[in-house]
Amino acid sequence: MSPREDAVLSTMQDVPLLISRILTHGSTVHGTSQVISWTGEGEPERRSFAEIGARSAQLAHALREDLGVTDGERAATFMWNNSVHVEAYFAIPAMGAVLHTLNLRLPPEQLAWIVNHAADRVVIVNGSLIPLLAPLLAKLPTVEHIVVSGPGDRTPLEGAHARVHEYEDLIAGKPTTYDWPELDERQAAAMCYTSGTTGDPKGVVFSHRSIYLHSMQVNMTQSMGLTDQDTSLVVVPQFHVNAWGLPHATFMTGVNMLMPDRFLQPAPLAEMIESQRPTHAAAVPTIWQGLLAELTAKPRDVSSLTQVTIGGSACPPALMAAFDELGMRVCHAWGMTETSPLGTVSRPPAEAVGTEREFEYRLTQGRFPTSVEARLTGPGGERLPWDGESAGELEVRGPWIAGAYYNGQDAEPLRPADKFSEDGWLKTGDVGTISADGFLTLTDRAKDVIKSGGEWISSVDLENALMSHPDVTEAAVVAVPDEKWGERPLATVVLKEGSTADFTSLRAFLADEGKIAKWQLPERWTIIESVPKTSVGKFDKKVLRRRYAEGDLDVTKL
Amino acid sequence: MSPREDAVLSTMQDVPLLISRILTHGSTVHGTSQVISWTGEGEPERRSFAEIGARSAQLAHALREDLGVTDGERAATFMWNNSVHVEAYFAIPAMGAVLHTLNLRLPPEQLAWIVNHAADRVVIVNGSLIPLLAPLLAKLPTVEHIVVSGPGDRTPLEGAHARVHEYEDLIAGKPTTYDWPELDERQAAAMCYTSGTTGDPKGVVFSHRSIYLHSMQVNMTQSMGLTDQDTSLVVVPQFHVNAWGLPHATFMTGVNMLMPDRFLQPAPLAEMIESQRPTHAAAVPTIWQGLLAELTAKPRDVSSLTQVTIGGSACPPALMAAFDELGMRVCHAWGMTETSPLGTVSRPPAEAVGTEREFEYRLTQGRFPTSVEARLTGPGGERLPWDGESAGELEVRGPWIAGAYYNGQDAEPLRPADKFSEDGWLKTGDVGTISADGFLTLTDRAKDVIKSGGEWISSVDLENALMSHPDVTEAAVVAVPDEKWGERPLATVVLKEGSTADFTSLRAFLADEGKIAKWQLPERWTIIESVPKTSVGKFDKKVLRRRYAEGDLDVTKL
Repeated sequence: MSPREDAVLSTMQDVPLLISRILTHGSTVHGTSQVISWTGEGEPERRSFAEIGARSAQLAHALREDLGVTDGERAATFMWNNSVHVEAYFAIPAMGAVLHTLNLRLPPEQLAWIVNHAADRVVIVNGSLIPLLAPLLAKLPTVEHIVVSGPGDRTPLEGAHARVHEYEDLIAGKPTTYDWPELDERQAAAMCYTSGTTGDPKGVVFSHRSIYLHSMQVNMTQSMGLTDQDTSLVVVPQFHVNAWGLPHATFMTGVNMLMPDRFLQPAPLAEMIESQRPTHAAAVPTIWQGLLAELTAKPRDVSSLTQVTIGGSACPPALMAAFDELGMRVCHAWGMTETSPLGTVSRPPAEAVGTEREFEYRLTQGRFPTSVEARLTGPGGERLPWDGESAGELEVRGPWIAGAYYNGQDAEPLRPADKFSEDGWLKTGDVGTISADGFLTLTDRAKDVIKSGGEWISSVDLENALMSHPDVTEAAVVAVPDEKWGERPLATVVLKEGSTADFTSLRAFLADEGKIAKWQLPERWTIIESVPKTSVGKFDKKVLRRRYAEGDLDVTKL
Repeated sequence: MSPREDAVLSTMQDVPLLISRILTHGSTVHGTSQVISWTGEGEPERRSFAEIGARSAQLAHALREDLGVTDGERAATFMWNNSVHVEAYFAIPAMGAVLHTLNLRLPPEQLAWIVNHAADRVVIVNGSLIPLLAPLLAKLPTVEHIVVSGPGDRTPLEGAHARVHEYEDLIAGKPTTYDWPELDERQAAAMCYTSGTTGDPKGVVFSHRSIYLHSMQVNMTQSMGLTDQDTSLVVVPQFHVNAWGLPHATFMTGVNMLMPDRFLQPAPLAEMIESQRPTHAAAVPTIWQGLLAELTAKPRDVSSLTQVTIGGSACPPALMAAFDELGMRVCHAWGMTETSPLGTVSRPPAEAVGTEREFEYRLTQGRFPTSVEARLTGPGGERLPWDGESAGELEVRGPWIAGAYYNGQDAEPLRPADKFSEDGWLKTGDVGTISADGFLTLTDRAKDVIKSGGEWISSVDLENALMSHPDVTEAAVVAVPDEKWGERPLATVVLKEGSTADFTSLRAFLADEGKIAKWQLPERWTIIESVPKTSVGKFDKKVLRRRYAEGDLDVTKL
């Protein structure tokens, strides 16, 4: 944007879009809405939005006055989803500091690297996570204060160079209101590092403006579309792209939140659903796969839950159909840390509703909202049409899309050429098609696509087809070098216990009914025990490629 | 807002919120959605959003290349609600000019004053409105081009100093795409003058930013909450605060629009509803009153219409109940030109849904959204609590709320002290209460409130109570001077034909069941033939006060 010097300005008020505004609104107009946090025993903890507003003000006072946190400084959280984490979500940015959510599933070295890169001064930690944090502390010289919330043994923190505080003691007696500052809406509000599979983690810094606009979008009818009559079970972690924006969005409309804390196993999730009766839930597919198995083994009354938002990776069609049977309507969403994350939501268009095409639309990644512009770039850099056929790398642009990565205080942001186009669009690294009516279908990660003889083979299409075989539990397909074709697919398959399926029959299954074109069928096959996963539960194909390269897989060539 | 020099900036893209973005999105992603314009004969005209996108680009080319409209210049519309008016809505701001919607119900002198004040260079006019525009032209020296669309005799325009063009000829053959400029989002996009009852009309200038944010809000679940499965009957005129934001909001989500053009009488509206089956409609109460009478006299299948947004003035409870009976759910909204207009929407809170209190909540003006901050100021300038009891003047603040009035090109904006507080909030001139959960109940206009012995009497409460009497068609209550109390209420009543009700019985009706406190009961009564109305259909109490002052009313004192 190059503002015009001679632009005729409007007579509208110049009011910034700030997170403090969302907090003030939610804790007054929707003051009776609740955050319900699972504790694992007895009744869950219930805090009204009004209480959370008051406690957020107390936390801001404590951070500023007791811990000396000043404008723009980073205060980190190392926490599960719970009401105290929601307080940190609001207090830290609203007072002018930067919330840094730490992904507690990252390897210790990566975590230390990230805390040091962000120069976090404060870490708020759940007591139950002290065993993960304490061993790192010696490597975190910038951390001056540890604030502990909730049950858990504190002794591992003894002897740390940082001062240790109890969250409840710290905020006790502080004023329950705070004169939130009038900030620039483009100021940093929160940051989150991507768990990149190559190179160092990359910091994405969200602004007050980007979070505010994103929250409005989440509440638009064709996104999650919840109201204050809903309760959302927020399984997606708060350390994972702001829990898809739910903590902010719910404070705009009074949606109740049900927070699972550390109880993310299928059994307690089923128990939460039965007892607290949420109407909506948000999580990655692996969680739902587990929940489905649990509900099959031990049926529960989960009838309250009618809407499920699935993101992070594509929902297998069989899983979507199974949830339909249970009366839970799955809605796909696509996004990434760099997109805040809401990129697309798969609400079928009016003309498909009630027709055979409805399910097809639901299987796509979904439709772009107004604020997310999209384009496809082909292998040669050419722009591809929105015809539902031409596959290219997805590039996006918009007010809640990253245009750079954080490079440390006072340093110029990073804009690597493989991540950002010359004209500032984000290169998502995802390959897919866009239909004329703006529905995105992703077929692959750019790095996972198999380049065979100048054509692209989608590893994901092969995986989905394989996983629809009754004997296949999981399957991952990776590109391996091939003398004749450049690359060819290698199918790695996890079979159900006791299965007698062999590679020839699996290959025939893929070819059957035109599921997969003949030239795309894998020649190379191997059985593995389980597909390696990244810290956020995605297939880690980098590991499979490495194991193949190192001769560590027993490959059969048909 | 005073931007901080040292603020830590985020790594988000800096993408402006522009009307061109809404157009591009609507005409691609929602390209098959439709604008259906009533023509009064045969099938209505249907244009897809894709066609409107193409024709808007053609219009922009014509305005820029043929008529020489440059950045920031005003192009006016003098039109009914129809698809061509929607094209003007998008083309004019998207190309960088300013859309000026002219209220065709204003008296000719006011219209001329407004066109001259805005210095409109172009007026797009519906052929059917030439008889209203032509007589004014001699007084409009800035208007160089008249563009005519739709049926109607052109001869009254002969001899005008302005050049006259046919809309369809002007855009024919122009390119169907336009390289929309990247503007500053705070640049002027559209303007609308308030039909002030005192002084000159006042120009409100909306920005791209304010319209974009407002459109997102309209699409949020707790506002109008429509999807692409809906068709909205847009009765509220496009010259009246951007038709409450519907033309912009619908292009964000693909909601179809049904446009009544000049056919605003109850019979054609009923016919439109029956034949086109809209699911939603938006209009002021007088329209609904007429429609209800029509449907009672001649029942039609209006079952598609389940949601009705009523604004402009309060919906009488009896009317709301009558529409409930018809299966049409009335939702109140409050706003004004200065608030874009969405200020509140009366969606009852979750805890009231399904209870006796639900209807009470629906009768309030509704709840403030996140982006509209509200406060009440008492008669002495003091801040009043949100307790549902303390009545004060409503003041609001937000990114789509006016902070000044237009004062002509290159002049400083007007900020009259009776309209804007020292700290920049809009003084709405409305008096009411706000409940703890943010629901606004308006009781009066500040200028209509009756100041009796240091207390306020609500004229609206008296009117509503009177209008609930079976013999009363309409009633308006105004303050008149009183020696003892300062001011006292005068009740002016329109009785049903053949009614034998007298003032004593009406007064007893008001006192009955504690409807109205005894000290608030009017002593002065008069029968009138009809309540005088302003150009937008509101009670014009100024006229009644003048008629009383001039001794023109036959007043009985009880």
